[in-house]
Formats: sequence, structure tokens, C-alpha cells
Amino acid sequence: MTPSLDGRYDLLTLGETLLRLSPPGLQRIEQARLFEIGVGGSELNVGCLLARLGRRVAWVSRLPEGPLGRIIDGEARRHGVDTRWVRWIPGTRLGLMFYEPGPEPRTSRVIYDRKQSAAAELGFEDAPWDALVQGSAWLHLTGITPALGPSCRALVLHLAALAAAAGKPVSYDLNYRATLTTPAEARAVLEAVAPHLRLLVLAERDAQSVLSFVDAGEQLATAIATRYGIPLVTLTRPPDAVPGTLLLANGEFHYAPQYSVEVADRIGAGDSLVAGLIHGLIDGDLELGVRLGAFAAAIGLATPGDINYLGPEDVARFHANTIGGLER
Amino acid sequence: MTPSLDGRYDLLTLGETLLRLSPPGLQRIEQARLFEIGVGGSELNVGCLLARLGRRVAWVSRLPEGPLGRIIDGEARRHGVDTRWVRWIPGTRLGLMFYEPGPEPRTSRVIYDRKQSAAAELGFEDAPWDALVQGSAWLHLTGITPALGPSCRALVLHLAALAAAAGKPVSYDLNYRATLTTPAEARAVLEAVAPHLRLLVLAERDAQSVLSFVDAGEQLATAIATRYGIPLVTLTRPPDAVPGTLLLANGEFHYAPQYSVEVADRIGAGDSLVAGLIHGLIDGDLELGVRLGAFAAAIGLATPGDINYLGPEDVARFHANTIGGLER
Amino acid sequence: MTPSLDGRYDLLTLGETLLRLSPPGLQRIEQARLFEIGVGGSELNVGCLLARLGRRVAWVSRLPEGPLGRIIDGEARRHGVDTRWVRWIPGTRLGLMFYEPGPEPRTSRVIYDRKQSAAAELGFEDAPWDALVQGSAWLHLTGITPALGPSCRALVLHLAALAAAAGKPVSYDLNYRATLTTPAEARAVLEAVAPHLRLLVLAERDAQSVLSFVDAGEQLATAIATRYGIPLVTLTRPPDAVPGTLLLANGEFHYAPQYSVEVADRIGAGDSLVAGLIHGLIDGDLELGVRLGAFAAAIGLATPGDINYLGPEDVARFHANTIGGLER
Amino acid sequence: MTPSLDGRYDLLTLGETLLRLSPPGLQRIEQARLFEIGVGGSELNVGCLLARLGRRVAWVSRLPEGPLGRIIDGEARRHGVDTRWVRWIPGTRLGLMFYEPGPEPRTSRVIYDRKQSAAAELGFEDAPWDALVQGSAWLHLTGITPALGPSCRALVLHLAALAAAAGKPVSYDLNYRATLTTPAEARAVLEAVAPHLRLLVLAERDAQSVLSFVDAGEQLATAIATRYGIPLVTLTRPPDAVPGTLLLANGEFHYAPQYSVEVADRIGAGDSLVAGLIHGLIDGDLELGVRLGAFAAAIGLATPGDINYLGPEDVARFHANTIGGLER
Amino acid sequence: MTPSLDGRYDLLTLGETLLRLSPPGLQRIEQARLFEIGVGGSELNVGCLLARLGRRVAWVSRLPEGPLGRIIDGEARRHGVDTRWVRWIPGTRLGLMFYEPGPEPRTSRVIYDRKQSAAAELGFEDAPWDALVQGSAWLHLTGITPALGPSCRALVLHLAALAAAAGKPVSYDLNYRATLTTPAEARAVLEAVAPHLRLLVLAERDAQSVLSFVDAGEQLATAIATRYGIPLVTLTRPPDAVPGTLLLANGEFHYAPQYSVEVADRIGAGDSLVAGLIHGLIDGDLELGVRLGAFAAAIGLATPGDINYLGPEDVARFHANTIGGLER
Amino acid sequence: MTPSLDGRYDLLTLGETLLRLSPPGLQRIEQARLFEIGVGGSELNVGCLLARLGRRVAWVSRLPEGPLGRIIDGEARRHGVDTRWVRWIPGTRLGLMFYEPGPEPRTSRVIYDRKQSAAAELGFEDAPWDALVQGSAWLHLTGITPALGPSCRALVLHLAALAAAAGKPVSYDLNYRATLTTPAEARAVLEAVAPHLRLLVLAERDAQSVLSFVDAGEQLATAIATRYGIPLVTLTRPPDAVPGTLLLANGEFHYAPQYSVEVADRIGAGDSLVAGLIHGLIDGDLELGVRLGAFAAAIGLATPGDINYLGPEDVARFHANTIGGLER
Repeated sequence: MTPSLDGRYDLLTLGETLLRLSPPGLQRIEQARLFEIGVGGSELNVGCLLARLGRRVAWVSRLPEGPLGRIIDGEARRHGVDTRWVRWIPGTRLGLMFYEPGPEPRTSRVIYDRKQSAAAELGFEDAPWDALVQGSAWLHLTGITPALGPSCRALVLHLAALAAAAGKPVSYDLNYRATLTTPAEARAVLEAVAPHLRLLVLAERDAQSVLSFVDAGEQLATAIATRYGIPLVTLTRPPDAVPGTLLLANGEFHYAPQYSVEVADRIGAGDSLVAGLIHGLIDGDLELGVRLGAFAAAIGLATPGDINYLGPEDVARFHANTIGGLER
Repeated sequence: MTPSLDGRYDLLTLGETLLRLSPPGLQRIEQARLFEIGVGGSELNVGCLLARLGRRVAWVSRLPEGPLGRIIDGEARRHGVDTRWVRWIPGTRLGLMFYEPGPEPRTSRVIYDRKQSAAAELGFEDAPWDALVQGSAWLHLTGITPALGPSCRALVLHLAALAAAAGKPVSYDLNYRATLTTPAEARAVLEAVAPHLRLLVLAERDAQSVLSFVDAGEQLATAIATRYGIPLVTLTRPPDAVPGTLLLANGEFHYAPQYSVEVADRIGAGDSLVAGLIHGLIDGDLELGVRLGAFAAAIGLATPGDINYLGPEDVARFHANTIGGLER
Repeated sequence: MTPSLDGRYDLLTLGETLLRLSPPGLQRIEQARLFEIGVGGSELNVGCLLARLGRRVAWVSRLPEGPLGRIIDGEARRHGVDTRWVRWIPGTRLGLMFYEPGPEPRTSRVIYDRKQSAAAELGFEDAPWDALVQGSAWLHLTGITPALGPSCRALVLHLAALAAAAGKPVSYDLNYRATLTTPAEARAVLEAVAPHLRLLVLAERDAQSVLSFVDAGEQLATAIATRYGIPLVTLTRPPDAVPGTLLLANGEFHYAPQYSVEVADRIGAGDSLVAGLIHGLIDGDLELGVRLGAFAAAIGLATPGDINYLGPEDVARFHANTIGGLER
Repeated sequence: MTPSLDGRYDLLTLGETLLRLSPPGLQRIEQARLFEIGVGGSELNVGCLLARLGRRVAWVSRLPEGPLGRIIDGEARRHGVDTRWVRWIPGTRLGLMFYEPGPEPRTSRVIYDRKQSAAAELGFEDAPWDALVQGSAWLHLTGITPALGPSCRALVLHLAALAAAAGKPVSYDLNYRATLTTPAEARAVLEAVAPHLRLLVLAERDAQSVLSFVDAGEQLATAIATRYGIPLVTLTRPPDAVPGTLLLANGEFHYAPQYSVEVADRIGAGDSLVAGLIHGLIDGDLELGVRLGAFAAAIGLATPGDINYLGPEDVARFHANTIGGLER
Repeated sequence: MTPSLDGRYDLLTLGETLLRLSPPGLQRIEQARLFEIGVGGSELNVGCLLARLGRRVAWVSRLPEGPLGRIIDGEARRHGVDTRWVRWIPGTRLGLMFYEPGPEPRTSRVIYDRKQSAAAELGFEDAPWDALVQGSAWLHLTGITPALGPSCRALVLHLAALAAAAGKPVSYDLNYRATLTTPAEARAVLEAVAPHLRLLVLAERDAQSVLSFVDAGEQLATAIATRYGIPLVTLTRPPDAVPGTLLLANGEFHYAPQYSVEVADRIGAGDSLVAGLIHGLIDGDLELGVRLGAFAAAIGLATPGDINYLGPEDVARFHANTIGGLER
Repeated sequence: MTPSLDGRYDLLTLGETLLRLSPPGLQRIEQARLFEIGVGGSELNVGCLLARLGRRVAWVSRLPEGPLGRIIDGEARRHGVDTRWVRWIPGTRLGLMFYEPGPEPRTSRVIYDRKQSAAAELGFEDAPWDALVQGSAWLHLTGITPALGPSCRALVLHLAALAAAAGKPVSYDLNYRATLTTPAEARAVLEAVAPHLRLLVLAERDAQSVLSFVDAGEQLATAIATRYGIPLVTLTRPPDAVPGTLLLANGEFHYAPQYSVEVADRIGAGDSLVAGLIHGLIDGDLELGVRLGAFAAAIGLATPGDINYLGPEDVARFHANTIGGLER
């Protein structure tokens, strides 16, 4: 029996992870002779950034035994994520993503090779979920996990209900992936978890194409909040939209500041936004959440790799409102 | 005797090739400790891209025996170019180009070291030219080859006439290089091949400074077509010119679309344009040629190296008109 | 209907291919930040080296559409292998191998991630096998292919019989892989193909542990030839065994010369041996085959990557018996 | 007040850490254009390997605030070391070491730049030492720490006594560094801590030149154990000495196995030996300690960097006595 | 006694140097696994560029014996700087700077680790200063040197007076560094050297925050010239200021041209400006100085590293007013 | 008129230089994607090492204007060689060498591309040779220079005579290159310079195959000294010969010590030997010359690149007879 974990974690999250392989510089995959090795996975990205912000984070997954799994585990721990609940599975594989950058007018491309990974069979038997939910202040889920397979789907639905029943706030990032699921399935999962959610994050284009909403901007956020009865709805919008990303909180709108960004890497910005939001919301500071989330997302875009190396120096500049420049 | 090659190739091209050496990132040559190795040569660039687009391409040249020659041969074959007609010459050298990138306000520089290369003595005896011309649907030549030496010059003039006599369309990219030839010589060669050309491609600035035209834009294209009696004249224009590159086809103008480009490499864009044009023209689709050529040139500028790694995914996006963005 | 391919290829081979990812230098996978990209696959390695030796080689496989598949295709073509019979499959994956070098007393490790690859479903419908076998002078198979799945197994058995019926010599490299098959299955496949084989290549340790022979060296080779009735049996032996690799040809023994080797890469040496053997045997020069195979294997061990870049200069030195040293 | 840490750690260790900068390959520092970044420090190396072996390890130090300090912290955590007791100091520096490899007949060189580092002022006020010692099963110290400065020296003497008083075994690696201290000082510290030690590790040459013993081998170990009254004395000896490293345990000798090693990096082997020893001794298996320590040291020599990436696969091979070879 | 050095140098300069370590590409320091090695130091940067422009330059400093010091010395000599007056000090350290690039909205950061360096104790006894000043046409100093320590401060004050007394023009770059000194100290040093200066270079923001001026632009320059009585005052201004950098020469304003720059590296632009200015002023061509300085600064920003690799080809383009573009 | 250079240089040398391009690690040229850039040339190698040993060295050559030439010049100056007498030639090329390492049983290969280089036309008009010879204590020549072309040949013959007439010792390294000259020509040049030589260095195999001597070892050295009347003859012998390299000095034999070497690079060892010899001979210490030369050659073999980075620390260890090991 797992001893009580009460008060141990600020955040519990779980899901898939991917080894990321990408060519250096602006090369195309086909012309590469080297791949830079990175680590990704939406929930892990969120967890790493929250750990870097000082939160106590537990991330649960399944990893293949061997050095590839240890690359993931080591990277998570490096940022301060508690990985003790990860299960190590012999004879399985690690999901992969190949990322090709897309300087204009090329297309940035992610080629996923994630089928049959250890994580895709994450399920009830893999962790003491009751104790973990009970021991955590917040539960973060994404729409990727239920799309991985039936055990994952059942787990996500169960955990959302469990957390809500325990009075724990639950966040959910829709994160629609056409290569993993269908709009109908994504919708069905969302409908099942919606009653348990404190915060829903989704892209405007997914709200339209997956959830079949017709509005945009504020009207869209209002329509989503109304249909699903979720207190906090964050709508991410295209880089050049005005306004940009917005958060609807119980009828009131909060707007993310927009930054000029020199893009180094297109992956992971949404996860940085989510981490910033949760960081603020844990302290009950919704405005901070929106602002820090937007700042973290911008820093993430200007940093190579999925995981955001936002540090205390950046946060200090954020609070001092002295972003950018040269410090010597 | 060479057996008949009838119907074997969509494109026959020939000429010089250069090993390209360039410092990584934005370094200057003088500060480099490594050179990235690439492969270039105007006709080879055209041939590789056409092969990537599915065309059957023969490229003829002379290469030095040994590993440096095999780098060239291997790269050409990798893209699907048929190199069986290349002659391997012992004891000769391979031409080189040193490329230094030029972020503003630096100057991008190519330092050529191409004298006495194996390719500079390409001539009649090197291939079964009659059979090759006969067996190919299109012949592509450039103004670089005749500038390499007398045997090359005689060969180019001969092949243009041979192809025209056989009813094969011939394209010619003026590609003026001040370090190889003079305006007078370039003009003389052009005048000799002009009667045999279906398509002439040239830069506006070369039309003015080498061929002594005074007009610009549409007037210039018309003047060129008139003076030389060439059915198709493509005029490339500076990045910020309006309109941009244009094609005059029997009195009618076609305009290349202009793309916003994040430049990764300034070399080879003109060759991509030519390849796109020929690809369309072989199918009789002039409009496709112009549009695909402009797209390929833009992709080429956004890709490191001379050779354009344009792939089927890019072509699909081109046809679907969904260029750029992030695909996952 | 496929037109006749009669006399087109010196060698037909087929099977799986793997993208190889390995850390630079002597790093462990867990500490790597970069992977060097290579291409491998036992039959492809054999095919590439034979193409480099001037043979006309067809290699058949299934590749996933997209840039990863094109890395494989481009590498094969670069060495001169004809890949036109490869089938391109959308939505599938490429097999991977992660290679970790093993300086003493570390263990060199290959971590395979090859399940569900496009190649694992290679089957009758993928190529005009009759025409290909008919058009080729030699058929090379390995024990890896039948271990990939039922369609592969059926195909290998069929092709061996087909080739033998057409009077074509067939070679078979046992290449036992414990992670893919069992001794019983490997034995069953060997027994099924044995009647059709001209040449069997296998490691002494596999003969013992998989095929349950108890002898070693010459006695073992004799026992194998006797049990399976195969005219040519090549037994590879440990680096320090005396004698080393040996070939039993109709009762007569031929011994591979042994080279002092500075090992750069442990993968692919066996494939180089096979290629050298076949090269000699195609010309009926068994002694050359053994000697060139052993030399090529040694050069392969001294060269990074799976594929052997043996070149004409090396072959010249091999024939002149002036191996090694400094040439300037 | 620190709450009880009883039973929390298997090992407590503390001391300096160094960012390690070394040229790639076999380059000399003077010709380098890149430095590979590593992490080192004798106690940290020991702690990381013990954490990798599954032990719960606390490492205490002082690190400069900022990204350089976070490199160290992240690396320690990656291997599973608990760094929560590290103090972060603004405005200080991190110690550095520049390592130049020494292929024969060059000299391998370490250039230290460790003065005025944050860690050099580690002292009583930096951690709840009583609780930490109480909460740990073993305390490991080295002779480097007391040589860093007066606060470090006082701390080491105090902790050795404290642990001994609490019945905790204490190990001490003499690790004499001529650039940090003098023989007289090193001897004085050793004499002060000796009464508290369970295990002393030292190099034979240091026993002779620093501690002025005249014997060698078994006689030397006996003399040391006698003079200082330490139950376990491990004497490391030159690579080619016979016998090699030996452990004298209450009058009985244990001999480390000797491995043939392809050296990738000369730093950290002694720390690996110590970690292996402690790992065995914690379980009361002295023989395992000696054998695993020698194996880990050999693996460490064959691995780039200070920190030993020994993994479960290596340990399994160690126990199965199937070291080396190729595993696929 | 030093023999006369009369007429030997166009420029004498002196001060600190730093080994510069920076992560490749746009990585953050915390995520780096490699540091690119560079050489910097304000006066050395000025000296190297002037040497590249053909001036005879002596740079005096103190360097630690060993390969790290030789990296600095070798780089200075490579550009043509005479380093024979450098003193080599055993057992000291070299100052370091860690540079992290700052693509928007990240902050570019320099982390200095320069305390206790060999150069920080530069003083009277280190060189034959009288002969050196006497033998040089110009003396260049910066505000960094006096901030390094008392011996440096005394030396700078002495040399400024010495040079002025000998009728040699003296330039002074304020170069305020908050981590080295205070506004009060910086002001005090400036006041002491001001009477001896021909040229003062400073940033507008330092004039305001360090020297407490309240004006900006032309008024500020005038106020500075008036307060300190310096004939030539150059005020550098933010990239987007209009006008940009300006030079006030005896009541007359000269304006630096402003270039569009693709920034590769933010460090060293000010030093390039100073070198250009001095180059012009040595020839009495103030207008050339301003223009060349601005051009060199722009080229420096577009070049990786501190030291400006401006070459004769760039200078030729500068004079021909054909900056940028592609030259082939 | 050149002012007197009396007493200015310890060594005058002159000749060709080559940009060296080599693949990283153990790659073959054909598989490389990067070339490491180095600098070589027999006389320049000798000059750089002597400058590193503290000698004042002038090296004369012709370099192409532009960044490639400046790579050479910068490297020479970095090591302290005085390059002021180099002539910069516009529109010429730099000689190249492509070096492929040869781990056993591969062959190490140098592919020269040195024809038509700027240096190949070095001649009387390029420098004030009289003053230079007069101002130098020693003149070093090699057999490569006269093989480059007629102007070089005339110059070498002239300088040898000139120096001898001025009482300056002349050394000559035969350095036979089959791709540049013939045995007959090499012999003819040697015969012409021999009367002027103090020191001849040559490989035993060249003495046999080029000069047609039949002896080996001591007998051979004696025969050479006798035939050509040269006071000092150094014969380099194969790595495993006993004795190894030997020096015959007026009838007395001196033997170079032989070192165990971990070879990093096969090029330049002979030049290091020559530099060491001259260093000793300048001081009249023939025994030191032989010993230091052998040591420097061994260090050079253990160091990447042509140029030997031997430093004061190595020399100190050489004198202290404490070669190798780990220093910390």
C-alpha cells in the first residue's frame, strides 16, 4: 500500500513522452547527417517548466528500460520533475518525433513515430493514482493521452472524475492531433471530462474544426464556456491575431500580452503557456498566469528544443518589466 | 557504337561541377575551422531538381578519379540523376568554390578555384552526343560551359544546333560570370546559340550590363525576344522588384509569384527556377512552369546548400496552396 | 506486365533496412546530445558494396513515404544500387537501430526498434519477382528477412526455390538474431531453403548454438555441408581464432587472410565478407572471393558506419598487395 | 528547525564541484575552437554513481546562482542525486577545470581554475549537518574539501567526528592535490579524521610521497592500517602493477580484478572505485565492493567525461560475467 | 634598458583580455554541451581591428603561462598585433566571459568571471611604459582597465598624463561596467584623465546614468565636451535612435551612417567603432573615421565573436560604396 | 633598398604552403560532410615549431589575396613566424591537400591539388633575398620547393650558394614527392645544393629508391655523407627499425630515442624532427638536436594537424625526463 502522499505535489501530470530528433540549423531531414537529440511530450513540457518555476511536480508515464528511456528520465529529473512513479518496461519502445524546421516558405514538419510505445499502454495498474491525486494540488491532462489507446483513455476519464471529486482543480489542453484521433473521438473525450474541468486550453482553429464552433475570439470563448460549463477557458490564437490569446474567467476576459519573437523552435510554446497559467492559478493570480504564460511561450519560441529553459533571471526581468536587451 | 537511347531521358544537360566549401553558421572564411562540404554546378543543380520532380535526367561531365569525384557522382545519383555518361579522368582536379555567407551589411562571396578542372576540357570525344540528344526530350545548356574553355565552347554550340535540328527544345541560362568570360564573348556565344533556343533565362542586370539592353521589365523582355527571336524569354529580377521574375511567351507575359523568404543560402535559386520552368514546359504547361519555378526558387533559398531538396510533400503543398505553417 | 529484365542485374537482393543512429566518438547513448545518422540493413550493405565493385545490383524493399525513407533510398542510389523496385508506403514507419560503441570493457550494443516497419510486410505483391529473378545472375538472401514476418518468410522460401529452378545461384547468410526469431524457426527456414543454395554463410557460434552442431573449424564446415548438401559453406570465426574464416568448397578448404585492424565500427563486416565472396564467385574465382571478402571486411571494420566505402584505390592496393601505409 | 531526516539517505557527501572544459578528440587546448562541457568533482562523481546504482544520495555544496550553477545541479539531479541542500550564492563563481587529453607521449593535463569558488567557503552554516548525518547511512569525505579553505577544513573534521559518534561509517579518499595543499597539511587532516574512519582510500604513490611510507603493496597497506588504526584500507596502484588495487580488511587482503581498458578519459576512475566499494560495503559485501569498484573504474575509463554512466545493463553483465563483446 | 622604440607603433593599448565561451547557435548556457571559444577584451578588440587595417599595434597585458594564455596571444598575433610586451605570469588565471545570445524576447547575457586574473594586476613594473608611449603615435585606454584594481588604475592615470605630456593623442572609451566599478569611481577616473584626452567615446545611457547628464543627442555631446574640455566626443546611441552615433569635433557634428544589420553577435561593436575612428583620426580624416567606424561596427555585429574579421575586401567595398550583395 | 636585417632572424625558410582539408574522426573523404581546416607545408611546419621554441623565424612565400591566404598567414603569425616578406598575389590560388586518415588496414592518403598555386612561382623578384640570407643565422630548404617549378628551382639553388658563401649553415630535407618530380630531377637538385649543405635529412627509403643507394642504416648514412660530402646526415627510418632515426656527424653516429606513440595524425613528423635538429644545432648542441627532434616528432604524431603545438610545458617535461602521465 502506498503511504499517504498528502500535500506532496503541486502538480500531477501524466502521459506520453517522445525522443525528439531534429537536423541542425535549417537543414532538411533528408540532407541531415546528424540529429540533435531532444525530449518532448506535452505534459512533460508543462511539468518541466512548472518544476523550473519552483513547483513540486510528479509526472507519470511508462518508459522502456535501457539508455533511451534514461535520456527521458534524466532530462525530466534535471529540471526537477519527480519521476519516481514512472514504470520501466522491458522490451518496449520509446515514441519518437522527427522535427524539421520550416524557414519561410518551407513548412515546419513533425513526423511522429509513436505507435506501440511503452507510454501508449499507460493504465490503471501503473501507479497509485488515488494517492497521487489526493497528494497533489492540481491535475493536468491533455487530449493527446486519451488518443493513445483505450487504457490511456479510460485512465484520463477516471482521473478527471477522481480529482474533481476530491476537490482538485483539473486543467485540460485539447491538443488535437489528427494523426492520433478523430474530431468525433476528441469531442467525446472532451464532453466526458468537461464537467470536471477548472481550465480548458485550446486553439481557436481546433475549436472551429474539431468542436465545430463557428465563432472566433471572445464570442468563441464564451460559446465554449457556455457549452461545456467550464469556469476558465483559454483560447490560443494565431501569432498575428488581434487580440491574441485570451482567457475567459467566469465571464471576464483577460488578454495575453504579445511579444515580438525571433523564433528558434516552433514546438512547445503552447505547453509553456499552460505552465504559466497553472503557475498563476495555483496562487489564485489569474492575471499573473496569463501574463507569465504568454511570456514563457515567447521565451520558449526563442529557445531551441521542446523544453523551456526559462530561468530565475528571466522571471526577474519579467517582474521588473525589463525584457530583452543586453545584460553585462 | 552506342545503342539507341531513344526516349530514355526527359532532360539532357552537361557542364562543370564544383565542390562547395563553406563555413558553418555565419562565420567568415578566415575564421572558420571547418568547411561544410556541398556539391554545386548550375546544370547539375537543374538536373538534380528535375530528377527529384520525377524526370529522367542525364548529366554529362568529366570528373577526377578518386574520392572527391565520387562525392559529386554520389550526390548526383542520390537525387536520381543518371551519371553513367560521366568520364572519369585520372590525375586531374575538381573545381572548387568557397562560399562565405553575407548577413547584412556583409557581402556574400563566392571564391572560385575552378581553373584546370577535369570538366573544363569537356568535349566532343567525351560522350555519344548524337545518341544522347536523340534520346532526350529536352536539352539544357548554360553560359558557364562555353566560358570554361574552347572544347566546351565548341561542344555547346554544336549541341544546341544538333538538338534544334532534331526538333528538341533547348534552354539556355545566360549565367554570366565575370571571372570566366567577357561580355563580348558571352554575347557572341548567345548569338550563336540563340537561333536554336526555345527558352532563354537571364538576369535583368546581365541583360543590361552584358547584352547592353537599356530597357527593364516587360520592355526588356520584349526587346530580348525580338533581337534574338527566342519564343520564351524569362527575366529574373531583383527580390524587391515589382513585378518580379517574368516570362514572355510569344508576346504574352506570365508573372512569377513572389514569396516571403527566410534566406538560408543565396546560391542555386536561379537553377531551381530553371528546373521548375522546364518541368512545366515539358508538359506544355507554361503557367505551371513559372509558378513551380518561383516556388522552387524560394524553397531553395530557404534551404542550406546549392542543391534543392524540394520533395513530394512540398509539391503537394504547392498544388494544395497550403505553403508554410507547421504540420504535425 | 513487366517487360523482360533479362541480363539486367548481376545481383538481386531484398530485405529490411534500418536507419542507424549512433552517438559521436565513444559516448554512451545516454550521454549523447547528437546522433550520427547512418543507413544499414544486411542485404543493403551487401548490395551497396557489390555496386561499388561495379556489379549491377537491384535491391527490393518497402520504404515509408517521406524524408526518412528518402535518406535510405538516396544512400542506396549513391552507391549505385538500383532502387526502382522499392515500394513507397504512406503512413508506415522506418525501422531504426541505435548503436552504442563498446571500447573495452564496455559492451558494443545495438538497440533495435524495427517492429511494424514498412519492410516487415514485404511480400509477393511488392515486386515482379519472377522477372527480377529471371533478370539477375545471382540471388542473395539472409535469415533476417524470413524472421521479420510471415509475408517475408513466404517470400524468401519462394524466391530461393524460384531462383534455383531458374538455375540461378542463391546465397544465404544465416545472420541469426535472437530478438527476431528462435533457433527452431531459424533452423526450419534454413532447412527449407538449403536445397536451393549455392552458398551458405554463417558464424561458427550460430552453427553451434542455433543449429546445434558440436564441432568447430573444418570439421564443423564439413558437417554443415554434409547435413544440408550445400556446395559452398563459409564459416566466420572469432577474430583471434586460428584459422580464421574459412570456405569449404566441394570438399576443399580455402582460408581467409587475417588482417590487423584498428576498429572504427563493429557493424557490417560480415556483409562485406559476403559481398566479396559473391563478387569472386560471380566470376567463378572462389579464391579471389575469399581473399577480397576478408579484405573488404577488414576495411569495413576500419570505417565508420555500416556501409563499406571501399573504393577502386583500395581494390588496386589489394591486387598490388600494398595494403596500408601512407600514400602521398 | 529541520524536521528529522532519519533513514532518508544511504549516502551523505559534500564538497566542491567543477565545470569541466575539454577540447574534442585529441586536440590540444591551445588549438581548440570548442570545449566540451562536463561536470566533475570527486565527491559528486561518487554520489552520481551511487545514485545510478540505486542508492539515495545527498550531496551538499555551494553553487553560484545562474545558468552555470544550474548546469551542475541539473547534471547531479539527472543521475538521481538529491541536491536540495545545495546553497545558491549570488555573485560568486564556479570552479573550472580544463582537461587536455594525453595520447602517448603527450601528458594528460588538468588546469584547475578553482580559487574563490562558491564551494570553497562551504561551512557550518550551509546545511543542517546534524540532521543530515543522522539521516544518512554512510558519510563520504575526501581530502580535497579540507584543502579548499578553513571553513571546509573545519567542517570536514567536525563531520567525521559527528558521524563516528553517531555510529555511521565514514569513508575518506585522500585524493592529494599538490596545487591545493601540502603534504604536511594533508597528513595533519588525515590524522585528525583517521580515528573516525571505517574506510580509507589512497594511491600508493601518495602514501609514499605524502604520508612518507616506504613500503609498497601489501606491506604498505598493512603499515597504513596499523599507523592510523583504520579497519578498511584500499590502496590503488599503477595500471601495470601486480597485484593491482587491493583492499586490506581487518588483516585480510582482497584484490581488485584487472581489466583491459581502451581509455577514453583518464579522470574519475578513482571515484568510480570508491562508489563501487561503498555500494558493496553498505550491504556488508566487501568482496562485491572490490569487484564492482574495479569494474566501474574500468567502465569509467572507457567513457568520456568525469561522471560514470554505468547502467543496469552493465551491472547485469558484471553479475553474469559476460563483460564486453557485441550485443544485438 | 629598453632601446628606443621611436616611431615603432601607430597605436599603443593595454588592458584585460577574456577568454570568451558561448553556446553554439541560439542555445542557452544551461542547455549547452559545447562552448565555442573566442577571445575578447575591449582594448584587444580595438587593437586587432587596427592591426587588420594595417596599423602597427602594441597591446600590453599580463597572461597566465600555459595554453589558455597562448590562445589569447596566438589570436592577437594572428591579426597582426605585437604582443612582445605581454608579461607571462605563472600560477595565475585568465579572465573568462560566458556569453549567451538573446534572440527576442530573451536577454543577451554576459557572465563575467574576471576576478583575480593575471591582467587585473597590470602595473608600472610590467612594461617599459615611457619608451612605449614615446614610440607610439596614439594611446588608447578604456574605463575597464582602471576598474580592474589599484595598480591598473594608477597605471591608466599615469599613462594618460605621460602621453599628453609627450604630445600623443589619447582616446578613452568610458565602457562603464556596473559589475566592476561604481558611477562615482568611473566619474573620478574620467575626471582625472579628461584633461589629457583627445577623444572620448561613451554611450548616451552611460553619460546619463553614470555621469548624470540630463540631455540627449547633440545637446548631450556638447555638454560633455564642455564639462570635460575634450576636443572630440563620440556619443553612441541606441540602434533605433535618430540620429544615431554622433561625433562632436570642436563644435561641429559628424553623424555616423546607419546600417541595416543582421545581428550575429552583440559583443564588440563599440570597439569596432573606436578602431575605425582612430584609424581615420591618425590620418587626420575625421569624416573617414566616423564613417569607417560605423561600417566596421555594423560588420562586427554581423560576424560571430568579439574580434572583427573586417578585411581588405570589405574596406574596398566600403570605399567603392558597394556594400552587401553577392559577389561571385 | 632594404635596410640591413643583420642579426634579425635565427632561421630563414621559404616555400609552398597548403590548406589542408581532412574529414573528422576516421571518416573517409567520400563519406565526409565536413572538412577540418588545417595549414601545412614542410618549411612552414619547420618554421612554426622553431618559432614556438623561441627562435626568430622568417618564412617567405607567395599567397593569394583574400581570406584563404589570410588563413595561412594568420596561422603562421599565431605561432610567431614573421610573415612580412610574404608576397600577396591577386587572382591566384592556394594549394590544397586533402588528407584521409588510414586506420589499419586502410591507407592514409594525401590528395594534392597544388598546381598553379601562387607559391609555385616564387622567385628572385619576390623578396630581398640577399638581405634576408645575410640577416639570418640559418637557412632551411627542402626538395619540395625546387620541384614546384623553374623559378623555385633557380631560387633554391641560388640561395643555397648564397648562404654558403656568407658562411651560413644550410639544411636540406630531401622530402621526395613522386607526384611533383622524378628521381633524376631530385638527384640533380641535390647534387647542385650538396656542396653548400651543413645538414641533409632524408628518409632511408628515398635514399634507396631516389638516390639509388643500396645500403641501409649506418652504412647508408656513411655512403651518403661520403658521396655528397655533407658534414651532417640524418637518416629517418621506419617506425619499427632498430636503430631508428640516426644522425651521422663527421663520422660519429647519434641515435634518436624511440617513443611509443598513439598516432593522431601522420603528417608533419619529419618536419618536427628537422625543427628539433636545427634548434639544437643553432646552439651547437647536436645531441640535444637529435633528442629534441625525436621527441617533437613523437608529440607531433600524437597531435591532430600538420603543425606541432609543442609548448613550453612539453619542453620542460622533456628536459626533466618526465614524459607522459597525468598532471593535475
